[in-house]
Amino acid sequence: MRVDSVLVTPIAFPDPPLLNAAGVHQPWALRAVVQVRTDTGLVGLGETYGDAAHLDLLDRVAPTLVGLDPFDLNELDRRVGAVARGVNTPDKHGLTGGSTGEKTRARVFASFEVACWDLQGRAVGRPVHALLGGKVRDAVPYSAYLFYKWAGHPGAEPDRWGAALDPDGIVEQARRMIDEYGFGSIKLKGGVFPPEEEVAAIRALHAAFPGLPLRLDPNAAWSPATAISVAKETEGLLQYLEDPTAGIDGMAEVAAAASMPLATNMCVVSVDDLEPGVRRRAVGVILADHHYWGGLRGSRDLIAVCAAFGLGVSMHSNSHLGISLAAMTHLAAATPNLTYACDTHTPWQGGVDVVSEPLRFVDGAAVVPDSPGLGVELDHDALDRLHANYLSCGITSRDDLGYMRTIDPGYDNRRPRW
Amino acid sequence: MRVDSVLVTPIAFPDPPLLNAAGVHQPWALRAVVQVRTDTGLVGLGETYGDAAHLDLLDRVAPTLVGLDPFDLNELDRRVGAVARGVNTPDKHGLTGGSTGEKTRARVFASFEVACWDLQGRAVGRPVHALLGGKVRDAVPYSAYLFYKWAGHPGAEPDRWGAALDPDGIVEQARRMIDEYGFGSIKLKGGVFPPEEEVAAIRALHAAFPGLPLRLDPNAAWSPATAISVAKETEGLLQYLEDPTAGIDGMAEVAAAASMPLATNMCVVSVDDLEPGVRRRAVGVILADHHYWGGLRGSRDLIAVCAAFGLGVSMHSNSHLGISLAAMTHLAAATPNLTYACDTHTPWQGGVDVVSEPLRFVDGAAVVPDSPGLGVELDHDALDRLHANYLSCGITSRDDLGYMRTIDPGYDNRRPRW
Repeated sequence: MRVDSVLVTPIAFPDPPLLNAAGVHQPWALRAVVQVRTDTGLVGLGETYGDAAHLDLLDRVAPTLVGLDPFDLNELDRRVGAVARGVNTPDKHGLTGGSTGEKTRARVFASFEVACWDLQGRAVGRPVHALLGGKVRDAVPYSAYLFYKWAGHPGAEPDRWGAALDPDGIVEQARRMIDEYGFGSIKLKGGVFPPEEEVAAIRALHAAFPGLPLRLDPNAAWSPATAISVAKETEGLLQYLEDPTAGIDGMAEVAAAASMPLATNMCVVSVDDLEPGVRRRAVGVILADHHYWGGLRGSRDLIAVCAAFGLGVSMHSNSHLGISLAAMTHLAAATPNLTYACDTHTPWQGGVDVVSEPLRFVDGAAVVPDSPGLGVELDHDALDRLHANYLSCGITSRDDLGYMRTIDPGYDNRRPRW
Repeated sequence: MRVDSVLVTPIAFPDPPLLNAAGVHQPWALRAVVQVRTDTGLVGLGETYGDAAHLDLLDRVAPTLVGLDPFDLNELDRRVGAVARGVNTPDKHGLTGGSTGEKTRARVFASFEVACWDLQGRAVGRPVHALLGGKVRDAVPYSAYLFYKWAGHPGAEPDRWGAALDPDGIVEQARRMIDEYGFGSIKLKGGVFPPEEEVAAIRALHAAFPGLPLRLDPNAAWSPATAISVAKETEGLLQYLEDPTAGIDGMAEVAAAASMPLATNMCVVSVDDLEPGVRRRAVGVILADHHYWGGLRGSRDLIAVCAAFGLGVSMHSNSHLGISLAAMTHLAAATPNLTYACDTHTPWQGGVDVVSEPLRFVDGAAVVPDSPGLGVELDHDALDRLHANYLSCGITSRDDLGYMRTIDPGYDNRRPRW
């Protein structure tokens, strides 16, 4: 079985005006769908970022993969490295921490690696989780991922979720999301309003959903002093506090003073960050994300480090569709030390997908597919539509700040903001 | 594909009187061969320790594996844990560090796990290295593993290697082993004679084989002060110094003073040791050993930790035959960050094996098999003979000290010895 062609298709799908420390989600979220075809007639699927600089790298790597054995991930890494070595493509939003050459390479590798796992599974007639050591759960718990948001994008009709700009709005959003999906834990994306307002929202969620684990993630919008103060105010309320402040040094300072674990997908985001993160005791939980941790294999390695050093494991999410959800779910299913429910943006995508039968959520958990490979099939009509969106939407890179400034030219992006 | 029977066969094969800090190798080395049979007619092979307490655990786990899917390593772990949880079977020689319940479980898991990888590979028609991410080398380098030794066991004829009890004997042994196998690096098992004599042997090796990397391993026979003194005397002569002293604290003290990296297969020997070992900066190289690190999977996790924390990777060896050599070689072949040649006792086994075609050594490296699974086949006649040895040899557990004391009743086993 050898790769005989690789197709990378950029797509765009509608995204609500979700607020965060960087600004606000643009009306279209970008992704790319990867199809890796073999000489045996199989097609493996991957889903990754759709930003222009990333697409450029994907397009340069894709033709070099012809002839690759999809089991040979070390050779894939070598071929990716031959193109991506020394290249660093930072993102504009900065919501997954800084970028480096190593992280760029890991992102590109992951884009194709997931498709290779899909091919491996299809070739041997087994689900990806079986190739990762076997599922230890039949369904993977996800959290309700709440955002402050406007009712709709400026100039557009309100979306079905409506506004959430205060504790009542957040509780209402949570109620609706939990009604629809059954989530058993809640994450609030913060860093939008002054910390006391976000703490009030956490208190309101705690009152409305007693017993449900809560998380707050201000995307490093706070100074260490502010973060320590919020940690004290939310004592006993939070399962973990995610990226309250920037950098390993700042996180270590907050971690030493906080009673709850600190989680991160911003300060420990590649292999090179693990040693300083561990030595400084900066974090207690790492949010794995196969899209930038070097795929399922790189994530598995990360998770092994977490097991060895007593770090909790959860999973980070950017706006994504059903191929990514399947990959995340297979990995999580085969991870004994998945200590927290994963994050997903699925509810925000309004049922839009590129797969014909997206994973089902039951009681807040995605049912783990047992069919060969990732267990999802491409909906080619949907892919065509979403690609047409990409061509017409006028967005080529995610830029939450730039979009915010088209609405509020004086928008203040200083860090720490509070 | 489901397991329908598991056969564990203890075996014994002749072993020369190799000296070490614990005493001397007994005339027979014990191992066990594991055969895992499936309802699809496949047989997967494993090789593990043959000590009585370990065999007892294997025999208790074996029947519980019926029905297991050989891909489901998480379920294998669960079944092993159901029997081995809370059990600790220390060895008598102590040459791989202390034993714990976790390490015991990892040893038992590994015994069957390797056979499962062999089955996976046979089932999908691919070598084990392909399932581990693909080989990054076609041959795996091993080192010449030198031992001080008597000419033969007391009362028996001299063996073909003859005596090696001084620098000249060690150089002669090295020359012969390198002539036969082509090894490109040399390890001397020390802890037998006063350190100055072993340093003299290292100097003699350096003079006789200029440019060949050298290692010295006294199995923690030295105090930290002695170890620091040896490290200074061997500056510029050693690739690494292996387990010069006992324990993470002692190793950290030596590591801080030594110019060469310290390697270990005695103080960091299970997942629980990784955090203290890393935090104390006790070691620079870890000798992976799938037999007690939880199989190929556990070793891969260990190797991921080493990659993240900048630790070198080599591979430890006990007396073993061709199934273990194949497993070690597949793992090493698929490990990009294998930074040193591996150890093997192969030359000491005098061509005795349980596999019909053992891996070939070319220029000191084992040629990586590309046939399905581990790429070795059981020689059933040899297995019968080696099992008959086991039944008649009278040894049921490795005991280097007890055997030494049958020869030298006053043999001094205090640690540190120097």
